[in-house]
Amino acid sequence: MQLRQRVIDAIVSGSLQPGVRMPSTRRLSVDLGIARNTVSLVYQQLVADGYLTGRERSGVFVSDALFEAVRTGRYREERHPPAASPWRPRLQAVVRAEGEGRAPPSWELNPYPFLDGAYDASLSPGSEWRDAVRSTLSTREFAEWSQDGGELDDPRLIHEIRTKILPRRGVQAGADEVLVVGGRRAAFSLLIRAFVNRGTRAAVEEPGFPDLVQLLRLQGAEVAPTAVDAEGIVEDEVDRGAGLVFVTPACQFPTGARLSQKRRRRLLEQAEADDRLIIEYDLAASGGFTDQAAPALRGMDQAGRVIYVADLCDVLGPGLGLGFIVADADLVRELRRLRTLIAGPAPRAAQRTAAFFLSLGHYDAILGRQQRVLRERLNALRDALNYHLPQLVAIDPRSNGTAIWVEGPAELSARQLANEAARRGVLIEPADRFYATPGAAPNQFRMGVTAIAAGNIRDGVAILAEVIRSLTQPSLDQLDPQAHAWMDGDALRTKMSGAKLLCRTAYGDPYEVDVLPDGRLIGKAGYAHEDCDVGSWWMEGDFWCRRWKEWSYGETARFLTVVEGDQIRWYRSDRLLFNRGVIKPNAATDDDALRANLAP
Amino acid sequence: MQLRQRVIDAIVSGSLQPGVRMPSTRRLSVDLGIARNTVSLVYQQLVADGYLTGRERSGVFVSDALFEAVRTGRYREERHPPAASPWRPRLQAVVRAEGEGRAPPSWELNPYPFLDGAYDASLSPGSEWRDAVRSTLSTREFAEWSQDGGELDDPRLIHEIRTKILPRRGVQAGADEVLVVGGRRAAFSLLIRAFVNRGTRAAVEEPGFPDLVQLLRLQGAEVAPTAVDAEGIVEDEVDRGAGLVFVTPACQFPTGARLSQKRRRRLLEQAEADDRLIIEYDLAASGGFTDQAAPALRGMDQAGRVIYVADLCDVLGPGLGLGFIVADADLVRELRRLRTLIAGPAPRAAQRTAAFFLSLGHYDAILGRQQRVLRERLNALRDALNYHLPQLVAIDPRSNGTAIWVEGPAELSARQLANEAARRGVLIEPADRFYATPGAAPNQFRMGVTAIAAGNIRDGVAILAEVIRSLTQPSLDQLDPQAHAWMDGDALRTKMSGAKLLCRTAYGDPYEVDVLPDGRLIGKAGYAHEDCDVGSWWMEGDFWCRRWKEWSYGETARFLTVVEGDQIRWYRSDRLLFNRGVIKPNAATDDDALRANLAP
Repeated sequence: MQLRQRVIDAIVSGSLQPGVRMPSTRRLSVDLGIARNTVSLVYQQLVADGYLTGRERSGVFVSDALFEAVRTGRYREERHPPAASPWRPRLQAVVRAEGEGRAPPSWELNPYPFLDGAYDASLSPGSEWRDAVRSTLSTREFAEWSQDGGELDDPRLIHEIRTKILPRRGVQAGADEVLVVGGRRAAFSLLIRAFVNRGTRAAVEEPGFPDLVQLLRLQGAEVAPTAVDAEGIVEDEVDRGAGLVFVTPACQFPTGARLSQKRRRRLLEQAEADDRLIIEYDLAASGGFTDQAAPALRGMDQAGRVIYVADLCDVLGPGLGLGFIVADADLVRELRRLRTLIAGPAPRAAQRTAAFFLSLGHYDAILGRQQRVLRERLNALRDALNYHLPQLVAIDPRSNGTAIWVEGPAELSARQLANEAARRGVLIEPADRFYATPGAAPNQFRMGVTAIAAGNIRDGVAILAEVIRSLTQPSLDQLDPQAHAWMDGDALRTKMSGAKLLCRTAYGDPYEVDVLPDGRLIGKAGYAHEDCDVGSWWMEGDFWCRRWKEWSYGETARFLTVVEGDQIRWYRSDRLLFNRGVIKPNAATDDDALRANLAP
Repeated sequence: MQLRQRVIDAIVSGSLQPGVRMPSTRRLSVDLGIARNTVSLVYQQLVADGYLTGRERSGVFVSDALFEAVRTGRYREERHPPAASPWRPRLQAVVRAEGEGRAPPSWELNPYPFLDGAYDASLSPGSEWRDAVRSTLSTREFAEWSQDGGELDDPRLIHEIRTKILPRRGVQAGADEVLVVGGRRAAFSLLIRAFVNRGTRAAVEEPGFPDLVQLLRLQGAEVAPTAVDAEGIVEDEVDRGAGLVFVTPACQFPTGARLSQKRRRRLLEQAEADDRLIIEYDLAASGGFTDQAAPALRGMDQAGRVIYVADLCDVLGPGLGLGFIVADADLVRELRRLRTLIAGPAPRAAQRTAAFFLSLGHYDAILGRQQRVLRERLNALRDALNYHLPQLVAIDPRSNGTAIWVEGPAELSARQLANEAARRGVLIEPADRFYATPGAAPNQFRMGVTAIAAGNIRDGVAILAEVIRSLTQPSLDQLDPQAHAWMDGDALRTKMSGAKLLCRTAYGDPYEVDVLPDGRLIGKAGYAHEDCDVGSWWMEGDFWCRRWKEWSYGETARFLTVVEGDQIRWYRSDRLLFNRGVIKPNAATDDDALRANLAP
């Protein structure tokens, strides 16, 4: 096949001119170290295809006739368009460039891509995919799916979606209630074409999908952004006049919040009261960390108001471009007609491949594998943020996705941070592009783990911390070395011996440390002390030193310490504030009273 | 793999309940006649994937935990939607059902599918396709294309399009001037989103693509249908106020007419004069019968007014869903952004497969193969129409596509014909659905050859002819057996001996027959007598009998004959008119004078 390709390239590119005699099979087989039979076979095929011509007793020649057009049609690398582009005044739909603030196309070249949704090769279902593709290649299979099926989807894929994916999401659907589409965007585009016209009011989550907002506005909709908090979309703030609301209950995009049960019920009640349709995009069907116990809204919906959308790309990989819609059969019929018009059905090759992929059980296996790996990475990211940026960032601990939503210091520009960090190989996503409201959340950003290896997370966060400090330094609490305001070594040793320290992690969890006089440390983290560790402490001059067994990577850390009343602050050797907490001189003091003093 | 799939199906469907002990590998290998190693391997994989659990010394069991959700989520076959569908009043875009007058999805079950564009398996590039797919499956390839490439297309596919397809069409394009899309519909949809808004006037060919008209109207355009004749779109009738015109110069859809050079130039001049964009859909890039010498309009365009669209599905098969747009680089950039919003890029797997397909040279080979086969079929269809329906149908001989455009008797309802014929296994396409104007061309229909085997064409046309006669019989010229109006055998023999007959084929070509007194026939068809044949004639009672060597399938035909002046009419044994012509008693008479008498 390689030989075939090379010969054709040479003919098409003109390296082998028409009429040229090809080397004999004997010579070529010796030159290339290929079996002579193979060369003969390739020549025979190329003769049959018209690229080469065999002349009796004189050999094989590059064909004169067939490629006249190919050879004569030359092409330039660049074409200079006329100065005045006649198409430009006629352009009706101008779409904002998505480039700004987005991951560069060559993100794989960066060592620290904290991106969400861009999957690294280790998570791609390569071998499973190949199994599935090979299954579609048998003559019988090929004959079946390669036919033009008209408007209909591959019934096998529909079956697999209904039996392997939807039951896990608590959704029941007949074969006539599922429509296969080209992915999330194709689904949104189709539904917006169906339901939105000039003046239609549509509520979206804020922050949410930026392309959804653009698409709605392109279709003439009035977009009503609705706030999102740690429990997901604030259902009471949905515009009462909105005929549509787009939600991501399982795992809010992009914050990762999970919609609470109370809000789910309220959202459905309000849709009924206000005569509204809910378009549910279910990230849980596509992978990620999902609460299997929480069924999709579509599964709770008794009134037929929820249209369910899922994308298969997170499990199958982005190369296949498949997703699906679940809706009432009549609506699926309408949508199918509209789909025929604007796109045609999703390619049958991809559909059959996906059907095999699912029928071979790879969906569950891949989901399981991805979740194991991503959970590990997410934990590593939390640990690293906590270690390197404990005072700088606020993280919502309830986040449910494959990314952590980070709020930096108030004066931080996340966009500037992203640009500076990118120069050092660290990619993060500024949050503002997820907001429909311009200028919102300038100090927030997102860090995802689907693309970064676990082993690179700590170093990436360390670099990010340096960049954040360099951008926000003036506002940081910094120890003045001239003032020598820290506690003297001997005094500190006395103060610490037998004390209890109360602190918070970067993501808000409390932890406490018993500083035993014999040099041991006992640490208990979490509201139920679910994460414990032991370590040791000692003094080196004025530096208080500690090393945990597991926490903080089991590394030795040295701090200068300031104590004012029951407030304690630790500074790193570069005099920058590392963390703060409350010190309780002896273990007899009441814990709760001290907790009340602990800054939130 | 089959075993794996069966086990998983059994678990998911509940046939194998959790906790059930699987048969031993030894037993299963004996029962199924599979090597024991294979069974072990499958078990090991299923254990690794969590479907099965191995317990030491007791065997392999169906896993308890993993499939809780799969098992508990039951699904119904049918779901009864609430009586009042809440989505219906909100539906903005209602698309006409395309079903009417269209080929049924299961057209392969019909023995005589005279369809265009539905490809039978023998024309599918099955083995070439498999080659290309296998090439994409290597680990290195997979890692490359399975990554999310963002908005960009596969550079390899772009390269192949630029070097293998476009030069044949006389189009030069830089890499930044090509955009890959999901096919013709996706291309139209994208361009219409870009250039059409409420009130935009757009000219289309009449007849033309029905979905294009619907899509334009959905977007709010005023559609201006423009007549098509044997030279393609009548360029002078394009609405002067139209900002866009959609044309199919290489092979007009659906009539197959080729746009003349004069009209091509005029179309470009007018676009410049009226400030109009031309959207050219080039069927020649997708296969079919094409005049390689006529470059695409885009190749002639100096002013940057032509946007070029091609679909790859006719060559690659409909299963891949790929096409492309060629336009100025700036416009491609705008369109790419819009595409990102409404669909995302075409799936990378399909793009890379197509790139391999083209790089392996299959495009030219398949085009060549398809053209050989389709030309043979098209000739068979012409012959059959000429043989079975010479007086009933009019065919444009210049038609250039893979279908023949047929005009039936004036009183024929092509829709009724299609329905009646479909009952007897003959599928044709009534022409009215290709018209934007309701009720146009009720007696016209299209017969394509991409789906029907050459060997079935004659029988299919024979059945179609019977159905046409049954639907139009009252108007047919029928010989009254009582009146005995035909010429007596002896008189006819005298009349015919040495005469010359002048006739026309169903597709309008003239042919003449010398009836030699010695019983031989010499036939010359075509304006330059490019098709000649010899045969013999004799009398059987009143029946004039003839048999050609090649023409009319070399079969004996018997006719009753009516001669009035120089007009001659032949009737079949069922007394139905077969054909008419002019008889010239002796060869000395001037041909041209007789030709003038020949009914057109």
